[in-house]
Amino acid sequence: MNLYSIKELLKKGTQCLNEKVTVQGWIRSFRSNQFIALNDGSGQKNLQIVLDYNNFNTDLLKQLTNATSIKVNGVVAESKGAGQEIEVIAEEIEIYGYANPEEVQETILQPKKHSLEKLREQAHLRFRTNTFSAIMRVRNALSFAIHKYFNENNFCYINTPIITGSDAEGAGEMFTVTNFNLNNIPKSDNGDIDFTKDFFSKKTSLTVSGQLEGEAAAMGLGKIYTFGPTFRAENSNTTRHLAEFWMVEPEIAFYDLDKTMWLAEDFLKYCIKYAIDHCKDDLVFLNQRFEDEQKQKPKEEKTEHNLLEKLDFVLNNSFVKLSYSKAIEILKKSKPNQKGKFKYPIEKWGADLQSEHERYLVEKHFKSPVILYDYPAKIKAFYMRLNEDGKTVRAMDVLFPGIGEIIGGSQREERLDILKNKIEDFNIDEKELWWYLDTRKYGTVPHSGFGLGLERLVLFVTGMGNIRDVIPFPRTPNNAEF
Amino acid sequence: MNLYSIKELLKKGTQCLNEKVTVQGWIRSFRSNQFIALNDGSGQKNLQIVLDYNNFNTDLLKQLTNATSIKVNGVVAESKGAGQEIEVIAEEIEIYGYANPEEVQETILQPKKHSLEKLREQAHLRFRTNTFSAIMRVRNALSFAIHKYFNENNFCYINTPIITGSDAEGAGEMFTVTNFNLNNIPKSDNGDIDFTKDFFSKKTSLTVSGQLEGEAAAMGLGKIYTFGPTFRAENSNTTRHLAEFWMVEPEIAFYDLDKTMWLAEDFLKYCIKYAIDHCKDDLVFLNQRFEDEQKQKPKEEKTEHNLLEKLDFVLNNSFVKLSYSKAIEILKKSKPNQKGKFKYPIEKWGADLQSEHERYLVEKHFKSPVILYDYPAKIKAFYMRLNEDGKTVRAMDVLFPGIGEIIGGSQREERLDILKNKIEDFNIDEKELWWYLDTRKYGTVPHSGFGLGLERLVLFVTGMGNIRDVIPFPRTPNNAEF
Repeated sequence: MNLYSIKELLKKGTQCLNEKVTVQGWIRSFRSNQFIALNDGSGQKNLQIVLDYNNFNTDLLKQLTNATSIKVNGVVAESKGAGQEIEVIAEEIEIYGYANPEEVQETILQPKKHSLEKLREQAHLRFRTNTFSAIMRVRNALSFAIHKYFNENNFCYINTPIITGSDAEGAGEMFTVTNFNLNNIPKSDNGDIDFTKDFFSKKTSLTVSGQLEGEAAAMGLGKIYTFGPTFRAENSNTTRHLAEFWMVEPEIAFYDLDKTMWLAEDFLKYCIKYAIDHCKDDLVFLNQRFEDEQKQKPKEEKTEHNLLEKLDFVLNNSFVKLSYSKAIEILKKSKPNQKGKFKYPIEKWGADLQSEHERYLVEKHFKSPVILYDYPAKIKAFYMRLNEDGKTVRAMDVLFPGIGEIIGGSQREERLDILKNKIEDFNIDEKELWWYLDTRKYGTVPHSGFGLGLERLVLFVTGMGNIRDVIPFPRTPNNAEF
Repeated sequence: MNLYSIKELLKKGTQCLNEKVTVQGWIRSFRSNQFIALNDGSGQKNLQIVLDYNNFNTDLLKQLTNATSIKVNGVVAESKGAGQEIEVIAEEIEIYGYANPEEVQETILQPKKHSLEKLREQAHLRFRTNTFSAIMRVRNALSFAIHKYFNENNFCYINTPIITGSDAEGAGEMFTVTNFNLNNIPKSDNGDIDFTKDFFSKKTSLTVSGQLEGEAAAMGLGKIYTFGPTFRAENSNTTRHLAEFWMVEPEIAFYDLDKTMWLAEDFLKYCIKYAIDHCKDDLVFLNQRFEDEQKQKPKEEKTEHNLLEKLDFVLNNSFVKLSYSKAIEILKKSKPNQKGKFKYPIEKWGADLQSEHERYLVEKHFKSPVILYDYPAKIKAFYMRLNEDGKTVRAMDVLFPGIGEIIGGSQREERLDILKNKIEDFNIDEKELWWYLDTRKYGTVPHSGFGLGLERLVLFVTGMGNIRDVIPFPRTPNNAEF
């Protein structure tokens, strides 16, 4: 009696004909007192279990309800039904856990289509749905591809701190981390909070980016990447924002921006290809979901490509690389700008690009992923390398259809004097960054890096529309359930 | 002119003879105005650059100081010196960043042995030291091995939440996460803190374990693992504790404890073997460090094996599997117990084992890694599966020499009624765990899992003595610098 996961057994298929096997899983459906669709989470496809109800007692048959978990001993046979090569003829069935149909009615486990909102309310159970388990397997494949890519290219994985004493990361609003009793916060004589009495003897927050620490690591290890959670205490209730999300941040000594743009493109294509190669069943299922969803949409909102075509399109085309200045020229002359269709009209160089502009460039003008570079210094962070024109910096954003910015990066300012001026211009306390400045003092080198929000990549590859549906337990304003 | 990382070039060795190459890195030493030891972080070994000082101007030569970063164009030649196969004869040298020797004197970058404490104070620079860069590369290899192992075995990587609204994880003291202005915390009419006004509309903390959410995921996806940061707000200033550390938590549907013990052993051996296979230079270096350190120790503290022997020993021996009850018998009769040498004498069954007991079993009695199982229910967590004896639970701890507990795990209580009784016994509010109980309602299955602290594994494989030296930026009481 060989134990198989359902994915393994379906993969082996007719190789296993007549083999005695054990399989385990949850019942997805039980038809005609004869056919069980069994799923154990290993893959999208169910295994068909066939039973002769004359061979099983009625009490057991009554318990074979949706969501009930069972163990089956049986023999592999060729399937007469469509859609599967093999099935298992049950000889013995053991019930692990019965699921009462009346109780199941109140959950998402009943065999009925549920809204994604409803699934989110039962995030602890949605792992057992086709849609969410497919998304989780794609997320897993993408995460592994990220580690594999960097490993193959000799990057060193670095865990930058989650709890940070630094106020200067500058990527967004921060959550406070404290061990104080909030009912009794120690104060100094002058009435200020006495942070020296807190756990870390200073004010601490949750990190918004591991970049600055990542740069320090790259200044010794050469090529590094981080992959960990980051946080934003921003009250953004959108389909694109989470208070807690996972970020990938490579940082590479001796790389200029051109090399980094090449790296970003190569990296994204590698990850997407890995998912296509390793999650075929899940992507076929999600593609069907995507097409069904498209059918419900008004004509002007329909996309040109289905999900699988969209992924292929990204793989098979070079990303357009375009300077910010040229992008502004295109946008100024564009139809929506001329006709007053942009909410934020583009009038002159220096404008911060909004999602509507990015999407116009990607989806209408170039119909391709676009990498914009050399942005105005004023709209970008202090650590980006100043160009010789004195007004632009070596920043880049990778823009994807439907998603907008998927990667943001830059060559970093490695020249100590210019960096110090920038820090002053940005009103950052230099003392906060003593250690960061040190990395420019003792053998500074040109270097670059970028940040990828994992969830944005998962959104793109799964074709989902809401970022809360691509992370197991989303954290958003007013929601930290589970 | 081909660009190489130093690791790549040294690996290719004499294959590259007479090739024109470019290399980049930081100067580790410059001897006799002729020999530069160059390191770019790609590996432990430096590349020797040979220059004829007649071909370079004096100003440039003066700038070739320790820590200075350079780019070298040159030709690969067979090396006459010992310890390397090839060297690069410099034709052009470009300086990226000069390091002033007077300033470098104040840092750990000067060529002198520094204490590990001193390195910690300059955590942003220690990536450029032999010891710390070796540790980081080993940590990277172990992290990748963890992902690779689970990927090859069809586990799905799950990111459980970092910010949690649950008070019931039970693994330790929690940090508070808040978006309140601590100077002005909203109160209700009755004077209590009004958490409904905080970001998540409830009290939130940093997770101490992703296990409970991981179980929910395994109840749909079958085999899952988490790998992320966890936190303890405990004032433990020891060489074994961090306030922020990385934890790996696999959780497997349909696994009993026996299978999980087997998994833990197989997993640990796989990771250690991966590090040995992929970090040879770094482990040879760390082994030398370990042996040098041993020489300083009094005889009774010296270990039987050096670092490499210790790793081989773990790979080549089966872990001893022993019930808690048998361990107590052994400990009761042991010499240190009889002679009153244990700080906590073992008097009877039910005693909580201390580090001294675990180390006695592993290092003196069995001289082998040991897996203890079937612990008294009273000293273990509420979610562990009750044995038929009604007094022990299906818990296990994997104990390693020098480290003590490296893995803790258990079969989980999948029976709803028994779990509910346990929750009541442990005075946990059942409402807090509504969703966790749900996973036992709709098709519950036997399942198990364990937790591995990454830093403990890195400690073991690198032979380091203090956990602060195996994580880039340690977080401990009174310390959240960088």
